[in-house]
Amino acid sequence: MQNVYLDYVATNPLHPMVLEAMMPYLKEDFGNPLSLYSFGSKAREAIENARAQVGSLINAKPNEIIFTASGAEANNFALRGIAIANQNRGKHIIVSKVEHHSILNSARFLEKSGFAVTYLPVDKHGIVEPETVKKAITKETTLISVIHASPEIGAIEPIAEISKIAKEHNIIFHTDAVASTGNIHVDVQALGVDLLSMTAHQFYGPKGAAALFVREGIRIVPLIYGGIQEGGRRAGTENVPAIVGMGKAAELARMNIDKRISYVKPLRDKLMDGLLRIDKVHLTGHPGQRLPGHASFVVEYVEGEAMLLLLASNGIYVASGSACSSKALKASPVLLSLGMPAHLAQGSIVFTLGEGTKEEEINYTIDTFQKIVTRLREISPYSKGWEGTEDAPCIAKK
Amino acid sequence: MQNVYLDYVATNPLHPMVLEAMMPYLKEDFGNPLSLYSFGSKAREAIENARAQVGSLINAKPNEIIFTASGAEANNFALRGIAIANQNRGKHIIVSKVEHHSILNSARFLEKSGFAVTYLPVDKHGIVEPETVKKAITKETTLISVIHASPEIGAIEPIAEISKIAKEHNIIFHTDAVASTGNIHVDVQALGVDLLSMTAHQFYGPKGAAALFVREGIRIVPLIYGGIQEGGRRAGTENVPAIVGMGKAAELARMNIDKRISYVKPLRDKLMDGLLRIDKVHLTGHPGQRLPGHASFVVEYVEGEAMLLLLASNGIYVASGSACSSKALKASPVLLSLGMPAHLAQGSIVFTLGEGTKEEEINYTIDTFQKIVTRLREISPYSKGWEGTEDAPCIAKK
Repeated sequence: MQNVYLDYVATNPLHPMVLEAMMPYLKEDFGNPLSLYSFGSKAREAIENARAQVGSLINAKPNEIIFTASGAEANNFALRGIAIANQNRGKHIIVSKVEHHSILNSARFLEKSGFAVTYLPVDKHGIVEPETVKKAITKETTLISVIHASPEIGAIEPIAEISKIAKEHNIIFHTDAVASTGNIHVDVQALGVDLLSMTAHQFYGPKGAAALFVREGIRIVPLIYGGIQEGGRRAGTENVPAIVGMGKAAELARMNIDKRISYVKPLRDKLMDGLLRIDKVHLTGHPGQRLPGHASFVVEYVEGEAMLLLLASNGIYVASGSACSSKALKASPVLLSLGMPAHLAQGSIVFTLGEGTKEEEINYTIDTFQKIVTRLREISPYSKGWEGTEDAPCIAKK
Repeated sequence: MQNVYLDYVATNPLHPMVLEAMMPYLKEDFGNPLSLYSFGSKAREAIENARAQVGSLINAKPNEIIFTASGAEANNFALRGIAIANQNRGKHIIVSKVEHHSILNSARFLEKSGFAVTYLPVDKHGIVEPETVKKAITKETTLISVIHASPEIGAIEPIAEISKIAKEHNIIFHTDAVASTGNIHVDVQALGVDLLSMTAHQFYGPKGAAALFVREGIRIVPLIYGGIQEGGRRAGTENVPAIVGMGKAAELARMNIDKRISYVKPLRDKLMDGLLRIDKVHLTGHPGQRLPGHASFVVEYVEGEAMLLLLASNGIYVASGSACSSKALKASPVLLSLGMPAHLAQGSIVFTLGEGTKEEEINYTIDTFQKIVTRLREISPYSKGWEGTEDAPCIAKK
């Protein structure tokens, strides 16, 4: 049986050169970076080197990089740290409806703490219209956060345009670039952002290392209090091996990004063309303005989870993208925000390609997917139409 | 030159069997535990196995273990998560003055958010008198947090007695057991605690993996919002290799703890006896009620940082334990809380032993330390006494 991994958006394998860079810090160089002697200083230098590498990847200064343990932590830190630091200026923030759960749920926490939050609508391709941002701004607004690229629908948002509006109104701007950093060019100067979240395991780095870019001069309240690590802005003994790995992965991404894009995009286009030829399969997200390795669809009359499991039984590993896959048993809020009916959103499936993807794997996937959809539709009670199925199949399982 | 590592309290080397357990998850088994297919389920099973191993170490159920990325995160999560979850019942919490910065600074954050905090005094050995806890309780008190064992002075607090008082008053009780878990017997049932923080790199596990024990039925508000990881209580893609490593390290600690204690304690006693024979060297913390591998002192007329650097130049790696070592240039609040004058607190030095410590290293350390103290006192402007030096030497450097 084939073994085709097309779920790079869930996580990437570790690049062998990244693991190699990490190994000394998993073995002999185990020191705590806060220690004053040589063991400690070696670890400290390794972290500062990684900080420069990560800064370089996004065109930031090393001292603008704060390491965290996950993209979710970076997003929580950004949203709550900025909202609280600026609460004397105002208590209104703006986020889009296509944000990651770590942004949406942080926003909800802020609402419970007395902040007002505006959730920006998107168009049918999942794109935030800059005009809607302008309209949402009030005198109380201190922070706008819009995702750079959606892991679920691949759409790339017009961050530079939105950040310009934020700047005109003297509002701090954050973008969640977890799915984009290392996969497309991410330049904090070109994007004009004040804060940016990223995570290493989206560009062949290790799990457990991520970062928040905080532009020099921006004040932020810590999420994790304690010692003086990360300039007092994020406490906790540094995960030295993972941070070193993130630095190396950032260096590799910076050097190879054009090559990576030009490798993965034609394969993705082939997959997209192949699957869209199947009857009643629709692309989600924007057709052009999307992550180069990302192809996402909804398939009528079929459940995402069923497709996913049948694909897996054929050795093809993908994501459903609908919240069903995360066992929450609700239609994906991102897909609903595109104006898609709930039943259609249940048929969501997401393919993401990477460095290891091969052309024959794409051919095999197109061929297999075609057969699976046909088979599922034969047995689907909904194949004659969704009428009278207000509750989508996934929800019905509760 | 010798290479004598006596700073196990800063961090431990990774046990070779722990690294071995982690390696598959740094290589082929890189899946995201949330994914539905085999890659994901393998990672998910590995995490659940680790959860059971960590639970076993402290006599807790697997579902009472929430993985975090650091002890600091676990402490922030406990203090703020419980305080906020119970704020409708009352807004007063109690912590001791010998807590770690991650507790003290979380408490200060809560004070800024409208909570009242009582900081419990300790006796000259650093021990919290249970009677003082009783007196501090008000009708508004919802949480008491007292450290299990201090990394700075090694003192073990009477947690079982204090938790009993908390229970009598229907108050939730947390202990920071970061320095103790894996080094002495830690049993959440015997201790009677509702929450307990621990970290893997204090018992030969990896950096980047830690945990908070939350007793079944205790409601806690997340620190990091996002996906459904850790039962929705701590979001972020799991650091699978580090969690697997923590599980293995917990298993090794559980099996070997008596052996570890009986190996390290006589060596520590020898070191303690040897150093206390030097004139004007005083033990900090409790003489008997202390971590078995922990020996901490203040040395009159000498600065901690100077001792530390001269020891390092002789190949001996220890911690100053005073805040000087962390470049904060303030006398340690823990030492001041023992009633020690600021100038004496500057002469703090902490030796911590572990599995790799050898008897000849202890002999060499006693011998070298004697010489270093003599030499430093010869050149010290304070060797005739501290009179007129209200500002301790360390502070004077600002």
